[in-house]
Amino acid sequence: MRLDIISIFPEYFSPLDVSLIGKARERGTLDVRLHQLRDWARDVHKTVDDTPYGGGPGMVMKPEIWGAAIDEITEGGTPRMIVPTPSGRPFTQGLAQELAQEPWLLFCCGRYEGIDSRVMDEYGTRMRVDEVSIGDYVLAGGEVAVLVMVEAIGRLLPGVLGNAHSAVDDSFAPGAMQNLLEGPVYTKPPVWRGREVPEVLLSGHHGKVARWRRDEALRRTMKNRPDLVEALDASALDKRDRELLLSFRAEPEDMAD
Amino acid sequence: MRLDIISIFPEYFSPLDVSLIGKARERGTLDVRLHQLRDWARDVHKTVDDTPYGGGPGMVMKPEIWGAAIDEITEGGTPRMIVPTPSGRPFTQGLAQELAQEPWLLFCCGRYEGIDSRVMDEYGTRMRVDEVSIGDYVLAGGEVAVLVMVEAIGRLLPGVLGNAHSAVDDSFAPGAMQNLLEGPVYTKPPVWRGREVPEVLLSGHHGKVARWRRDEALRRTMKNRPDLVEALDASALDKRDRELLLSFRAEPEDMAD
Repeated sequence: MRLDIISIFPEYFSPLDVSLIGKARERGTLDVRLHQLRDWARDVHKTVDDTPYGGGPGMVMKPEIWGAAIDEITEGGTPRMIVPTPSGRPFTQGLAQELAQEPWLLFCCGRYEGIDSRVMDEYGTRMRVDEVSIGDYVLAGGEVAVLVMVEAIGRLLPGVLGNAHSAVDDSFAPGAMQNLLEGPVYTKPPVWRGREVPEVLLSGHHGKVARWRRDEALRRTMKNRPDLVEALDASALDKRDRELLLSFRAEPEDMAD
Repeated sequence: MRLDIISIFPEYFSPLDVSLIGKARERGTLDVRLHQLRDWARDVHKTVDDTPYGGGPGMVMKPEIWGAAIDEITEGGTPRMIVPTPSGRPFTQGLAQELAQEPWLLFCCGRYEGIDSRVMDEYGTRMRVDEVSIGDYVLAGGEVAVLVMVEAIGRLLPGVLGNAHSAVDDSFAPGAMQNLLEGPVYTKPPVWRGREVPEVLLSGHHGKVARWRRDEALRRTMKNRPDLVEALDASALDKRDRELLLSFRAEPEDMAD
């Protein structure tokens, strides 16, 4: 997969040299190309922004400079263009999986109040353009959002995750206990600072372990993400699941742990 | 604000040298201390993980090593501890604002299947511990989630944002048009590649500009985040807002742009 990233802070992307993504780049699974937007600015100060039409605080990134950069980088080809912005549609594991199928992605990192909207309109006629938000919070720029997306997408590429880890069991992966959050995990020693590992996990009884994990997943999802419980497909719940969910609702004090 | 970050990839955090956060560190507003978790491992291989109790794929981070690291780093003090995990409660702008009030935050970056759950139980008796998720997608580790949180929190600290930018107008900031997404922004030139800036923005009529911006914010929120529209406080909507929202519902084709 080819990834082009345009930013006024290309040095921000040094984490892409590290860990799984760093190794995927070394192996050639990921071809990451970083671009300094200011290289396409035409004045001596390398200005990339100007005041917003209609007034108000902050600055808007100028369309001509983005246009010159995108034209040159995409000459002769058609990537899918991703623009991180808090007003975009949510980035989800489903979208990560969809983007992991693409041969070429172009990430455009806005700063300040954002990029002149005509840039997305213009390229939207020539390629698929997605404005995407990684969550309901405000960042200083799109750079860290692109790091998040590249990591979420990159680990789904063939050969990037080792055999030691299965992407299937993760919370939000398809088939992951019907979109429940994962419960607590434990490793050796069996007692640490007086705290014991739950006995069932030492029992060797696979069925009981699976049931305990499902109970804990339901409990944690109910506590941290009641919206996900509401969205559960009722047909995927068994009798024990329904009893548990009812007991959580009936005894809110139990949720305070 | 003091920030301690424990990770097996402390080199991942070089983006904290850049831009707003880098300047806040230079000025002393932010005191960031990076720690290599493996420094507290006691074997020659610096092992930090082991197989999960109860079986299954992946590895779990060992409690003794986290315990030794957290004890030494927090000796004589009580930070608020943040553990990024996909099964945590959502990180939101509200939580960023709450955390920006704290004098001392300790971020613990899990990798693999996560940290032995007794670590959070143990320190939860001595300090506030939050397990937090930045979004509904799976990352390779907690590092990039901590970068996101530090940027969202850091930009709220006094003096970090310049006067040129107001944190109040951002989507998700309190008072930001009742949690609507921001609409499109424009700057010079008035015509770019045949595309004109919306005429109202050149009119100099503040009331009309404000109304147009609200219309566009409602339109974009309806398109990208219907959940936020559902959550709007009806008393905050005027007659024109309600008419617009009804027209979007009546004409779904209008939403496809």
